Amino acid sequence: MTVSKTVRVGVISGSTRVVRAGPQIAAWVRDIIEKDLKQTPAPGGVALEFETIDLGALGLPLLDEPGIPAHIGTAEGYTHEHTRAWSRQVAALDGFVFVTAQHNWGIPAGLKNAIDYLYNEWRGKPFMVVTYGGHGGVHAAAALQLVLGGGLKMLALKETVNLTYPGKDVFDKCARGQPLGLPPAGTATIWQDRQEDIAKTWRELAASLATKAEKAT
Amino acid sequence: MTVSKTVRVGVISGSTRVVRAGPQIAAWVRDIIEKDLKQTPAPGGVALEFETIDLGALGLPLLDEPGIPAHIGTAEGYTHEHTRAWSRQVAALDGFVFVTAQHNWGIPAGLKNAIDYLYNEWRGKPFMVVTYGGHGGVHAAAALQLVLGGGLKMLALKETVNLTYPGKDVFDKCARGQPLGLPPAGTATIWQDRQEDIAKTWRELAASLATKAEKAT
Repeated sequence: MTVSKTVRVGVISGSTRVVRAGPQIAAWVRDIIEKDLKQTPAPGGVALEFETIDLGALGLPLLDEPGIPAHIGTAEGYTHEHTRAWSRQVAALDGFVFVTAQHNWGIPAGLKNAIDYLYNEWRGKPFMVVTYGGHGGVHAAAALQLVLGGGLKMLALKETVNLTYPGKDVFDKCARGQPLGLPPAGTATIWQDRQEDIAKTWRELAASLATKAEKAT
Repeated sequence: MTVSKTVRVGVISGSTRVVRAGPQIAAWVRDIIEKDLKQTPAPGGVALEFETIDLGALGLPLLDEPGIPAHIGTAEGYTHEHTRAWSRQVAALDGFVFVTAQHNWGIPAGLKNAIDYLYNEWRGKPFMVVTYGGHGGVHAAAALQLVLGGGLKMLALKETVNLTYPGKDVFDKCARGQPLGLPPAGTATIWQDRQEDIAKTWRELAASLATKAEKAT
């Protein structure tokens, strides 16, 4: 069956630190996905559009809404314009690729903050998780799977992708926000061996997006 | 052995929502602990002082320090005065009682933010966790144990205390920041049955604080 609907995927760079490596890693992940799509088109003839969201640039303050997000149905239900804009942006997307660092064995506060601002805008949508860190960020990945899949009733894939720094020099570059020499996809990079994991997980997300798009038509 | 050092315990109310029940629940927990201390003094003759910290009133912005907290040794190493003040406040405390809600099966962003601002100020210090929520906040408790015990190398107790709302009316009061009718300790409240859990867990924290104080003398 051919699905005419265009499916929109948000690639969310979760790091909001002043000095951060998140945006370049998110760009690298998106590059791998778009390259893979040229070789393996999404099932059901789904047309895909990508939108990168750098939470550091978005600049949401620490949650300042008086209401409970789960009780609010539309962007107009929020008090602040920054929340209404964020609500509209997330509501317009059909699925998500979360790319994040791990802070103290958990989700970075800036990412958790952006997530907790909303509820119905996330609910039921499929997502994949890519973490990075000295040990791959496995604790942040598990916490994020639980929050998004359990707390927000989104559709989690079984596996997450965890990018482990190959050495202290890479950690130092990440900490300083220096170039990691990642793009373009398909060429030698520090995480060359994880490119196939990202592509494989992406294809599962694409299948989940296609299934949802088919049901919606 | 008598320990002359006064041990200082921070009771941290983790909620930073505009409308929040956290401070009244934290006050109730502190009341139970202080009442229990009159009946069961801390081991080793430890003298105790308590300081309540309401993170909502503290008003830290979303992490805006350029450095990695683990690499910073003193308050003067931070860029912003709000971080230096927070560093001094936490460094002066010997142990902690974390009282927090659960947001979307995870740690509230405001609490994670306040935690992630620092590193060496937390390290090695004992803590206990009290969560509250519709299902007691067990996911937030587990995430917090992992972040504080694993990520920050603090001393976790084995058990956490999870306060489950007895009904929707209590949830609604919490959501609206209305009085829950909690204090004073020892009288009938919605969580009357959990008072002994709080006191029991507190006695374990007091023993841990006494052991640390003894080693330090």
